[in-house]
Amino acid sequence: MAYIAVLGHGVVGSGVLEVLTTHTESITKRAKEEIKIKHILDLRDFPDLPYSDLFTKDFQKILNDPDVKIVVEVMGGLHPAYDYVKACLENGKSVVTSNKELVAAKGAELLRIAQENNLNFLFEASVGGGIPIIRPISQCLAANEVTEIAGILNGTTNFILTKMIREQMNFEDALALAQQLGYAERDPSADVEGFDACRKICILASLAFGTHVYPQSVHTEGITKITLQDVDYADVWGGVIKLIGSVKMLENGQVHIMVCPMLVHRGSQLASVDDVFNGIMVRGDATGDVVFYGKGAGKLPTASAVVADVIDCVKHFKARKYLFWEDAKPDYVADFGAVETDVYVRVTGETGDAAFAAAEAIFPGAKRLLAKNPQAGEAGFVVSGLTEAELAAKRALLEKDNVQVLNCIRISDY
Amino acid sequence: MAYIAVLGHGVVGSGVLEVLTTHTESITKRAKEEIKIKHILDLRDFPDLPYSDLFTKDFQKILNDPDVKIVVEVMGGLHPAYDYVKACLENGKSVVTSNKELVAAKGAELLRIAQENNLNFLFEASVGGGIPIIRPISQCLAANEVTEIAGILNGTTNFILTKMIREQMNFEDALALAQQLGYAERDPSADVEGFDACRKICILASLAFGTHVYPQSVHTEGITKITLQDVDYADVWGGVIKLIGSVKMLENGQVHIMVCPMLVHRGSQLASVDDVFNGIMVRGDATGDVVFYGKGAGKLPTASAVVADVIDCVKHFKARKYLFWEDAKPDYVADFGAVETDVYVRVTGETGDAAFAAAEAIFPGAKRLLAKNPQAGEAGFVVSGLTEAELAAKRALLEKDNVQVLNCIRISDY
Repeated sequence: MAYIAVLGHGVVGSGVLEVLTTHTESITKRAKEEIKIKHILDLRDFPDLPYSDLFTKDFQKILNDPDVKIVVEVMGGLHPAYDYVKACLENGKSVVTSNKELVAAKGAELLRIAQENNLNFLFEASVGGGIPIIRPISQCLAANEVTEIAGILNGTTNFILTKMIREQMNFEDALALAQQLGYAERDPSADVEGFDACRKICILASLAFGTHVYPQSVHTEGITKITLQDVDYADVWGGVIKLIGSVKMLENGQVHIMVCPMLVHRGSQLASVDDVFNGIMVRGDATGDVVFYGKGAGKLPTASAVVADVIDCVKHFKARKYLFWEDAKPDYVADFGAVETDVYVRVTGETGDAAFAAAEAIFPGAKRLLAKNPQAGEAGFVVSGLTEAELAAKRALLEKDNVQVLNCIRISDY
Repeated sequence: MAYIAVLGHGVVGSGVLEVLTTHTESITKRAKEEIKIKHILDLRDFPDLPYSDLFTKDFQKILNDPDVKIVVEVMGGLHPAYDYVKACLENGKSVVTSNKELVAAKGAELLRIAQENNLNFLFEASVGGGIPIIRPISQCLAANEVTEIAGILNGTTNFILTKMIREQMNFEDALALAQQLGYAERDPSADVEGFDACRKICILASLAFGTHVYPQSVHTEGITKITLQDVDYADVWGGVIKLIGSVKMLENGQVHIMVCPMLVHRGSQLASVDDVFNGIMVRGDATGDVVFYGKGAGKLPTASAVVADVIDCVKHFKARKYLFWEDAKPDYVADFGAVETDVYVRVTGETGDAAFAAAEAIFPGAKRLLAKNPQAGEAGFVVSGLTEAELAAKRALLEKDNVQVLNCIRISDY
């Protein structure tokens, strides 16, 4: 019998109980012993649940129970999750978590503590929900050099963008619908500002390239400025707008990492990832492009990924899984201003023609796009191969000419 | 130092050498010891290769070398691959193979021998080339009930169909182009008749549901009868034609398994899998639909999957990977005639209208499709919810009415 404790009885926590209960037979077969929940930590009371006697409000009770060898952390947030997880690892308990904020902020430290104590710290559920991604990347890495990862990592923003693209709903209405359907929080900023996607690309980058990247060192843009006019121009250009988290290993050993909306060609595998789904492209030198697609969130998908990690822990009490990265290094993240990009720009002036003429003078080689539903005074164009610093400088020049830049969206090459 | 032997120095075999040579550092780090090839078995001579001294024509030399703990079989074909692999497993050597014919025909037996000898028999490269699929399914299974798998499992036929759909090339020309580009063999029957896809869906079905399914018990159709007219009707219907291998667990514990061309809706993730790429959808009760996409063949993708298995073997000399299925059971594969299907039918008679009128009398509820480039005397229609046996009977009735059935293509629900 393997005893575990679950910290947090929210959506994912109750899902973990459901999965363990409904799949007991196959889980026992896989783990080669029965997995039993001994404690559930939550500050709330759940008197009506059949397993209400398992609840405790006292973390020390779990920490000091020598029966408990594996702790599942599904509370979310940085504190007290971090403090609890650290204490568990320092006291001989392996930890499984779905908490991307925790892994993105403290992954290197917690992996080191786990290694020092010969324990496992697993987090398959922290990226991509039920999509197996952490293990396959780890597996791909074995005989393959990963060169780039790019993904639609946040289901909420993808749902909003899909509604804008498919049903010409504007951003505000699509967000309201997402909130109504429970896909977005009342305060949606973690999703729509790109912070959630940022945490996930940090985890994938750290795993794939072996060095921790912290969210605060990643250039992050959300989708709040995107309008139906941008969706129209993207369509004319030949693609769709997606919120992409991406990381690329540069030849000088630095990584280029960012989260921003991007124009993705219609033929790309990522272009057809719609609604709340996630899609993650892993580019390797031997495998080429491999794409993983599925529901990136939700109670049961996430819970089943957590439980799969628990089973792995039970099977590997003595043999640690190879999952490790070093702490951050200075100058590891490439200077954002120096990176080259192709970009779509939407401007407004006295007339569309005047605005484009001014833009063309500043962006030589700009190619104008003709919107299907043009807005008076506006023009859209694409331009290639300028650095982010050049782009910022040219934007400033345009504003001096009384041409306002309404939006700037980068163009992906996958 | 872990010594291995490689049986076969064809495309995949030479790729294994290339991957081991070009990724030595990361492989050693992952495997925690250096992996060295001690013997290569091939009947041909390769005097000019830098590692020509490793070649042998004598399998016994490998079998009797106690240093060799892992044997890589990349010869392909059933004999002598089966005999060699069996001998290796019976003599204390773990085996890694990319040979789908071997695994589909002898998987249950070889897994049993491996288990009895506490050895590993791994075959990630046998399905999906460089796409991680065997391990993720195995992982998905842990805390999730897989209910259905459907995939584009053969790159050659997918290339041909893509050319037919995108460039209106006919089947013969597209096949000739595939042969010219090296995607298809001079004798293309294993690909175009669906045999290759059949072996792969057998492997996935055996793995996902724990009972071996042999290729000969699978209803298998190829793509040789598909014409540009069918492609046109599929487009009008709202999708594309793909060669799909699928298996579904039925409520009575039987599996419905088949390989056949299918109409796939444009919105499906599988519809956008083009050219030589593969895409595999795994439907689970907790995860929902997860799709894996990438290059399903090719020297380096396949070789990197083989090497990843070798690394896993080295890391698990004493701990077997959980990978097992029982031998076939009678009545496990559902009677094909009893299975319900939706289907598209193309018929020809004196006139298109007359042919459809006759068809409608026999297939009540048939919905006619109007081709963009109609062929004189032809009609296309779709009809839902009839069994395969009913479909066959109704086809016979139609022929009696002097209406010829030109093609019948099933309609997928994913």
